[in-house]
Amino acid sequence: MGSVTSDHPGIIELYGALACGEITAFYRLADEAKFAPHLYGRVAIARMAGSEMRHYELLHSAITERGRDPFEVMAPFIDVLDAYHRSTTPSTWPETLVKAYIGDGIAADFYLEISSAFPSDVAAVVQGVLAETHHSEFVKDEVRSIVDGDTIAADRLRLWARRLFGEALTQAQFVLGQRDDLAELVLSASGDLNHIATLFDSMQAKHDERMKLLGL
Amino acid sequence: MGSVTSDHPGIIELYGALACGEITAFYRLADEAKFAPHLYGRVAIARMAGSEMRHYELLHSAITERGRDPFEVMAPFIDVLDAYHRSTTPSTWPETLVKAYIGDGIAADFYLEISSAFPSDVAAVVQGVLAETHHSEFVKDEVRSIVDGDTIAADRLRLWARRLFGEALTQAQFVLGQRDDLAELVLSASGDLNHIATLFDSMQAKHDERMKLLGL
Repeated sequence: MGSVTSDHPGIIELYGALACGEITAFYRLADEAKFAPHLYGRVAIARMAGSEMRHYELLHSAITERGRDPFEVMAPFIDVLDAYHRSTTPSTWPETLVKAYIGDGIAADFYLEISSAFPSDVAAVVQGVLAETHHSEFVKDEVRSIVDGDTIAADRLRLWARRLFGEALTQAQFVLGQRDDLAELVLSASGDLNHIATLFDSMQAKHDERMKLLGL
Repeated sequence: MGSVTSDHPGIIELYGALACGEITAFYRLADEAKFAPHLYGRVAIARMAGSEMRHYELLHSAITERGRDPFEVMAPFIDVLDAYHRSTTPSTWPETLVKAYIGDGIAADFYLEISSAFPSDVAAVVQGVLAETHHSEFVKDEVRSIVDGDTIAADRLRLWARRLFGEALTQAQFVLGQRDDLAELVLSASGDLNHIATLFDSMQAKHDERMKLLGL
């Protein structure tokens, strides 16, 4: 692991990417909740989306504390996040649940892995934003009950989760190729290029664990 | 003004109506944000929807503290709230803004007027849920800039706001006609039928003030 100073120009880009991610996730969750077969599911998704907005407020404050405009800082990340969501639009309730759980998990793994190299003020923001919420318990229970004894449903969701993971990595690499400061931040945080490979291996391992928790 | 004891059976119905209102408003805001012409507007609406979910969490706790299931308690209010939103679906960004501001305001006036007769624990929940957020400042500024010097836009929005007020009252009366405990709560809180008339007059006066704040 490397280390990063508090004035690294990639930090504000990281905040922008995270903040834009919260807003995009908020709207996607709200839209995808249309598949919920019951009020309980609609409320659970709304509460997850509410958590995204609490996290957004943290980032909004962290960005303005650095004297920057949140909208300007978020703008470069809108298209790539939209592209991720467009290419992973669920068409069923189980797909919606798996996406909410797996997508959030992949993002959290990535940011938490690199945050250990951050100065404490930045690490606190990132960890506060990515703290897992109790709502994901609901997703685990719901998905497990759907795939229990239904191998066709389980196989479909396994493919779906693989696609989510692949798309997330594709878009992450695209962003790092475009945003020099952010790429330099990830490189500094990881130590060197070899450690970036280790980072992606570790994300794959955590993704596999998460799939097991879903019964997939 | 009358008074209401903490064990009045209408209180749990009031919480159910409020909680269901937050969830419904959450999804409507998220959907109606599609009219936002800029990222700033999308974020402002998402933050308003985030506030609805913070309020929902307060009500969820208040309902479970009374030993009741939030979903069962909310269920009777889904159809009427959906009916209100279906009959007041905005088709432009200014209509979306006016609805968010005026609709929230009408509900807040109603609940705050009756809450002064509530025992302190219940009044605290209701007032916490209806506390105005700083986000409505954004709506005021945005609407004022839209109608400034544009009398046609202003006239249209004035009609729109009148329809919102009329629909809200129609649906409120429908609910009170169906939910005996809730109707009895409102009656007890108001004192008597004459005071209910006063309550509606006061709501009209506050609605008019709010229209002035929007420049309408």
